[in-house]
Amino acid sequence: MIDPVLVEVTRGGWVESRHRGAIAVVDATGRRRAAVGDVEQSVFPRSAVKALQALPLVESGAADHYGFADVELALACSSHNGEPRHAATAARMLAAAGRGEADLQCGVSWPASRDAAFALARAGARPSALHDNCSGKHAGFICVSCHRGIDPAGYVRPDHPVQREVTATLAALTDTSLNDDVRAVDGCSIPAYAIPLHRLALAFARFATGEMMPPARAAAARRLCEACWAEPHMVAGNGRFSTHVLAAFPGHVFVKGGAEGVYCAFFRQAGLGVAIKCDDGAGRAAERVMAAVISAFVPMAGDEPEGIADRLPVLSRAGASVGEIRTVAGLAELLRQG
Amino acid sequence: MIDPVLVEVTRGGWVESRHRGAIAVVDATGRRRAAVGDVEQSVFPRSAVKALQALPLVESGAADHYGFADVELALACSSHNGEPRHAATAARMLAAAGRGEADLQCGVSWPASRDAAFALARAGARPSALHDNCSGKHAGFICVSCHRGIDPAGYVRPDHPVQREVTATLAALTDTSLNDDVRAVDGCSIPAYAIPLHRLALAFARFATGEMMPPARAAAARRLCEACWAEPHMVAGNGRFSTHVLAAFPGHVFVKGGAEGVYCAFFRQAGLGVAIKCDDGAGRAAERVMAAVISAFVPMAGDEPEGIADRLPVLSRAGASVGEIRTVAGLAELLRQG
Repeated sequence: MIDPVLVEVTRGGWVESRHRGAIAVVDATGRRRAAVGDVEQSVFPRSAVKALQALPLVESGAADHYGFADVELALACSSHNGEPRHAATAARMLAAAGRGEADLQCGVSWPASRDAAFALARAGARPSALHDNCSGKHAGFICVSCHRGIDPAGYVRPDHPVQREVTATLAALTDTSLNDDVRAVDGCSIPAYAIPLHRLALAFARFATGEMMPPARAAAARRLCEACWAEPHMVAGNGRFSTHVLAAFPGHVFVKGGAEGVYCAFFRQAGLGVAIKCDDGAGRAAERVMAAVISAFVPMAGDEPEGIADRLPVLSRAGASVGEIRTVAGLAELLRQG
Repeated sequence: MIDPVLVEVTRGGWVESRHRGAIAVVDATGRRRAAVGDVEQSVFPRSAVKALQALPLVESGAADHYGFADVELALACSSHNGEPRHAATAARMLAAAGRGEADLQCGVSWPASRDAAFALARAGARPSALHDNCSGKHAGFICVSCHRGIDPAGYVRPDHPVQREVTATLAALTDTSLNDDVRAVDGCSIPAYAIPLHRLALAFARFATGEMMPPARAAAARRLCEACWAEPHMVAGNGRFSTHVLAAFPGHVFVKGGAEGVYCAFFRQAGLGVAIKCDDGAGRAAERVMAAVISAFVPMAGDEPEGIADRLPVLSRAGASVGEIRTVAGLAELLRQG
């Protein structure tokens, strides 16, 4: 099965580039509400499951023990821009556990935000692991480890107790056996597991509704998404698609993207989970597809909120609109038909 | 016709992302030596045809009049990194014609090279149009205009005499009528024309051999590619694929990439032109495909030169190899079969 074209990039009257992909929308029982393309394919969810990977931070009691509020919990679920507030919050989380930047094993990166990166360069500073987009997630892992009295050294390894706990949580939510056969290594050095796309959507439907979860986990899930809605800037940052969506639909629409064209979401009122994979790994396409999925399933009163359109202009560097990136005609219909 | 998968991006033992595309390899008479995917499709060549767009700079006599050497001619053909040497050379070209940065209409951009951009930021400076990757091409257009005694104002418009001359040159080399129906606007504000992929390959075969061209144009083509081989750093810059290839095969292999997954080339000894388009616009895929095409058609004595492999590791941010980006098995065979 070849996934259909979901997004076109035009220039003048011509389609210049095309992105193929698949979309799964399911409820907490696994019933499919929409399936476009090959929803059985296994994909690496990458950072799209960070909120799921943060469940042990709350479930273990570490978040309470260290006095974490919404801002820290949102950062634990984030792929952040590396803005000063993101780096400072990661540092504060580590300090709460008596640890520091040197314990982070995500790697050192310049901030993902160009503005933040240039500001750092202008200040004559160098980036640290705190600026890496995964530093909040990693700080959370270190806090779980310390709270449980386990040495965090090697916390990125699959056999470290923290990763075992994170993997078990992900396996339970996705109803999938995450064994060595489906394991690779993520960009931030933690294990990455290949998971069928519809199972990822299932996990998000469960995360949304608390169904098929122990009560403590359901409460933890609720607390994490409430934190992300309260602090959308911490989950991504200035100008980012997921920050716009979280800010536009508090208490209702949760979204989180991952590398290589993955995007996940849930719509709480509808009790639906969503997982998207663009075949070619293009984030620009995954965002437009997610915008179209939101339009199809989320009733909107009035105009579409800023920054989450399913079509955006392609600009010349002089600022003129010379084309657009848009979901294909008929995608909304395809999604509604299920 | 759906273009085949040309490139896979793996993580552990799994294919994480896939890039589809088409490859045309033809000789100067248009005879096809290889055709993978839909080679009849029209694509915007974007910056891949900059060397062709620079022909009027030499043919008009402007390059001689202003005393341009290899370094300026290579920059006129470039999509450069915005390194200090690139910006300074563009400024020198403009000054030779009594013009300056304010005449450039490409738009202002931070240098494409992260190192160059951070160096600029650290120095407390702001980017100018000289740092835009197209500044050398635009400086060339302005020089042609001034040398011909034409006001360069509006030189990016399709009806400006310089663009008419550039378009006529491109139309002749590609054997294509570049009328308004196939015209859009490039990222640097000049006209972009949609051209069948195999015709782009044809243009490069002619550029390589001088066949089907007036002698003055054939000489100009020769001078431009000799300049690029003499100054490969000016054509792109530090760490760039095309700079590696030009440096590795002087006098023989010419390559130039464009935005949205386009790459063109010629192999002079074989008299072949090449045009590649990745459907999704991914430059990472176009480079690997070009590396595979070079391997298939260019005899290499000894090891593959640095930086132009058809497979490269995917690295974690901690620097570990966690996968690879590679052309698909069987692509070399497909190319050799024609």
